[in-house]
Amino acid sequence: MNILKISLLALAVGASPQLQATEPIQPIQPVKEINAAMAELGKKLYFDPRLSKSGVISCNSCHNLSMGGTDNLKTSIGDNWQQGPINSPTVLNASLNLAQFWDGRAEDLQEQAGGPIANPMEMGSSHALAVDVISSIPGYVREFKLVFNGEDVSIERITGAIAEFEKTLVTPNAPFDQWLLGDAEAITSFEREGYELFKSSGCTACHNGAAVGGNSLQKMGVVKPYSTSNPAEGRIAVTGKDADRFTFKVPTLRNVELTYPYFHDGEAATLTEAVDIMARLQLGREFSQEENAKIVAFLKTLTGDQPRFLLPMLPPSADATPRPTPFEDDDALKQEISRR
Amino acid sequence: MNILKISLLALAVGASPQLQATEPIQPIQPVKEINAAMAELGKKLYFDPRLSKSGVISCNSCHNLSMGGTDNLKTSIGDNWQQGPINSPTVLNASLNLAQFWDGRAEDLQEQAGGPIANPMEMGSSHALAVDVISSIPGYVREFKLVFNGEDVSIERITGAIAEFEKTLVTPNAPFDQWLLGDAEAITSFEREGYELFKSSGCTACHNGAAVGGNSLQKMGVVKPYSTSNPAEGRIAVTGKDADRFTFKVPTLRNVELTYPYFHDGEAATLTEAVDIMARLQLGREFSQEENAKIVAFLKTLTGDQPRFLLPMLPPSADATPRPTPFEDDDALKQEISRR
Repeated sequence: MNILKISLLALAVGASPQLQATEPIQPIQPVKEINAAMAELGKKLYFDPRLSKSGVISCNSCHNLSMGGTDNLKTSIGDNWQQGPINSPTVLNASLNLAQFWDGRAEDLQEQAGGPIANPMEMGSSHALAVDVISSIPGYVREFKLVFNGEDVSIERITGAIAEFEKTLVTPNAPFDQWLLGDAEAITSFEREGYELFKSSGCTACHNGAAVGGNSLQKMGVVKPYSTSNPAEGRIAVTGKDADRFTFKVPTLRNVELTYPYFHDGEAATLTEAVDIMARLQLGREFSQEENAKIVAFLKTLTGDQPRFLLPMLPPSADATPRPTPFEDDDALKQEISRR
Repeated sequence: MNILKISLLALAVGASPQLQATEPIQPIQPVKEINAAMAELGKKLYFDPRLSKSGVISCNSCHNLSMGGTDNLKTSIGDNWQQGPINSPTVLNASLNLAQFWDGRAEDLQEQAGGPIANPMEMGSSHALAVDVISSIPGYVREFKLVFNGEDVSIERITGAIAEFEKTLVTPNAPFDQWLLGDAEAITSFEREGYELFKSSGCTACHNGAAVGGNSLQKMGVVKPYSTSNPAEGRIAVTGKDADRFTFKVPTLRNVELTYPYFHDGEAATLTEAVDIMARLQLGREFSQEENAKIVAFLKTLTGDQPRFLLPMLPPSADATPRPTPFEDDDALKQEISRR
């Protein structure tokens, strides 16, 4: 009886089914309670460049689902090749964020989706034009009626459908999650040591929960100030409070192997560099090469199953659909370039 | 016996199994003899924007497989938002073309694929840089070895794999093909009348074969000259012969409903307009509104099954991978804009 008890205890420690409750990181949950028809419509809209003035920029341009939900650029390229002000955060697991954008200025995915469409630096369209375009396309009109109980196209329904699709973009089943769920062999001892170091160094103070981040706003540069030429000042843009200067949403570390480059300015090209800077600026410590490598190895165990789906087919424009105008406003472009 | 003969004859006419042999248009054949592993690698490369200098332009940017293999722009947007010189032709069924590009300057798909990568107006990279980038990515290096019998990354293998993927992009099973193959109900009598008019008016002189075009170079403006501000002069750029001025590859009409706008300059926004201009300039006749509508209805029966596949996942860059440089050479951009 005692032997049985000990065996069960050993099994429990090895297979650690109760780790979930005690670890600061929880497994990503698979998608539940999705309106599948709405998500399918949202997938088309997510890939549709006709939501932009130029006809070439879609949600997927900067949040590319072939590349970890990012564009892998320091900052994105917007309408007229304008340089974006900030690094495009991944759309993967974005539904787990406490708010959207680096400064958390959008409450949820639906509010976020409306931003870039009408931002002259990004997709360069307007909500009115986006509705005009989508409601001129017979294939979309039918699908909106089907999904939204006979209702017509509206910007709320466009962004609502995109948000519903984005809710499906979770990445469960990472090696680290398999380990959390009890498979002791799912990560190597080197990776496990990286995780222990990640915890004991205090990284989990901010990078915790299912998304390993995304659930708080924190100052960039706690121990030492962060030096950058990027003018973004973070949360102060939302609250106007000086205390919020350089406060940003803590990014998720899920799939961080795929979402390079790092930080709001995209200035850290590699995980090695990002871990080093975070340690010095946020924790006031320097990791040895080996410690850094262990943490990087752990971070790479956070890459989960990527969303797999058929490339959507977009319904064709009709004769009356407003056409894209990528090369209008050259004067505005010249001014923009002269300001650089 | 006589009755049976007549019935069989009637059946043959109605279901027309022998139409294939006598009609100027043949059904699109499904893909055969593909190197599946090479095509799978080529699909990734086709979607990989790291083949461009900026890191945002892939083959799929201008030949978007969600939109009929085109970008639905008059002319495409290249590196630094440069305005392309000519309308991007569809990649769908491009394997059936006698040559590639509007002026037929590339012999085949592989030769074509190398063009935009190194064109400063398009993807803005170089073959050397493209090879550097792809051969720095461990996931690609392994896949090239697997596909090419242990060989390393080279530009020939990159373009060869892309070409192999593009060979899969055929669109069989259009309603018109179903009719050609014997299903008398696959197209309406209105569409059928459009086809008869298309034939009797002489459209099939150039638009014939499985691709309904793509198999000859012809002068744009046979009866009346074509007026355009687009400076492209067609085949003369390849041969230097004055007789080839304004000679272009006849575009395929397969999926033409999806590949708007039309002509090498993209100046015809709708099928109605394109049919009208073609009739007046190439055939010296004017279609009535109803005739035009019938031909347009027929053309829409040429939309086949679009290629359906999972959005490819791209292997992540390594620390040593050369990073995209979208915002370098602003001076060159300023010069380009001042030239417009």
